[in-house]
Amino acid sequence: MIKTKKKGLLIVLSGPSGVGKDTVSDAVLKENPNLWKSISMTTRSPRENEVEGKDYYFVSEEEFQKRIQEDKFLEYATFNHHFYGTPKDKVAEKLNEGKDVILVIEIQGALQIKERIKQALFIFLLPPSMDVLKKRLTKRNTDSAYAIDERFKTAYQEINELPKYHYVIVNDTVEAASKKLNAILISERCRVDRIEELYLDTIEEKVHEKLVDNKKLENSEIKIDL
Amino acid sequence: MIKTKKKGLLIVLSGPSGVGKDTVSDAVLKENPNLWKSISMTTRSPRENEVEGKDYYFVSEEEFQKRIQEDKFLEYATFNHHFYGTPKDKVAEKLNEGKDVILVIEIQGALQIKERIKQALFIFLLPPSMDVLKKRLTKRNTDSAYAIDERFKTAYQEINELPKYHYVIVNDTVEAASKKLNAILISERCRVDRIEELYLDTIEEKVHEKLVDNKKLENSEIKIDL
Repeated sequence: MIKTKKKGLLIVLSGPSGVGKDTVSDAVLKENPNLWKSISMTTRSPRENEVEGKDYYFVSEEEFQKRIQEDKFLEYATFNHHFYGTPKDKVAEKLNEGKDVILVIEIQGALQIKERIKQALFIFLLPPSMDVLKKRLTKRNTDSAYAIDERFKTAYQEINELPKYHYVIVNDTVEAASKKLNAILISERCRVDRIEELYLDTIEEKVHEKLVDNKKLENSEIKIDL
Repeated sequence: MIKTKKKGLLIVLSGPSGVGKDTVSDAVLKENPNLWKSISMTTRSPRENEVEGKDYYFVSEEEFQKRIQEDKFLEYATFNHHFYGTPKDKVAEKLNEGKDVILVIEIQGALQIKERIKQALFIFLLPPSMDVLKKRLTKRNTDSAYAIDERFKTAYQEINELPKYHYVIVNDTVEAASKKLNAILISERCRVDRIEELYLDTIEEKVHEKLVDNKKLENSEIKIDL
């Protein structure tokens, strides 16, 4: 009875370093075969257990700079003196296939996307408290004490950007936070402005009506110039 | 870490007669102790099994007219020559207590509320097809053939109001539809504009910041004049 837009949703999940973005998004990805997680490109060195092409694409700074020149990133940012970026081509491809795409990225990058793609969905993941965040950062044991301190200071500034997001989820437990993220995905798919066509179809009477004006629809399309 | 607004959400669920609004909302009410369903007042006669004060408040037309004069309804409408209305006082009371309130009402009434309360949430329940709707109306066996026909004709007109709603749910099965309605409730509670205060609180450093400007908050408050 309704036909919804074929193009996928673009979801931007961010939040301070150490808040648990990857854990929460991985839990949601498991339950959503139609959701695809974008893989970032970075100039930082792989951590132990990190796999090329799964966790990140690891490239040299020279290679990264070349891709900036060629406008191949949807967003990029520096964080702790390393570059991180979202390759455009894959995201556009998946959205056009009708897949929902989730970008798990830092706040700097998220704000760049907000400037460019008005219809993307912005979700901010908060720690239950700053204490918990500090503990998580320390426990992760992947950075030097100096780097942890830097990340923690950055977190304070970043949280001020929260009002620019659409949704906020407090990451008390992975289960509760992923349930909320899932609910946001389900509810966004029910939004009336995602409807392309509404038709009434009965045996007695064939009616076919376009109820949503096309201008509005065009504006809500996600367009990425490649 | 965040304090959300104490006032409850006002949810308006409507859709054509026979689509299953009560069945779906009852399923959601079971799982949500914080959700309260408003009881409408009507001048029509009780159907078999309908209980006064549970399904409806049944009153005479004279009594209903008196209450209209006293501005005691949030909305009211006529449907098949009977009056239906939502009493203001109870809804305001529950919202102020922090309960979410769901109004299960016809489209005419919903549109009145949209004029008065900008922050209410409008959800439209659609049948999987008009054929299914007709079968459901006939099967319900509560109305004369003439009344069923009237309801069916009205449904055609009503569906045109769908673009004025925020969300649309197709009622394929009660389970799927109530899952979607539940997801909408969860996700709406995660909206950034529901945050009243965001505070950072650590042992080392006490920071207390109001990040959301109060003007915006005031506008998003649900105000019902009694």
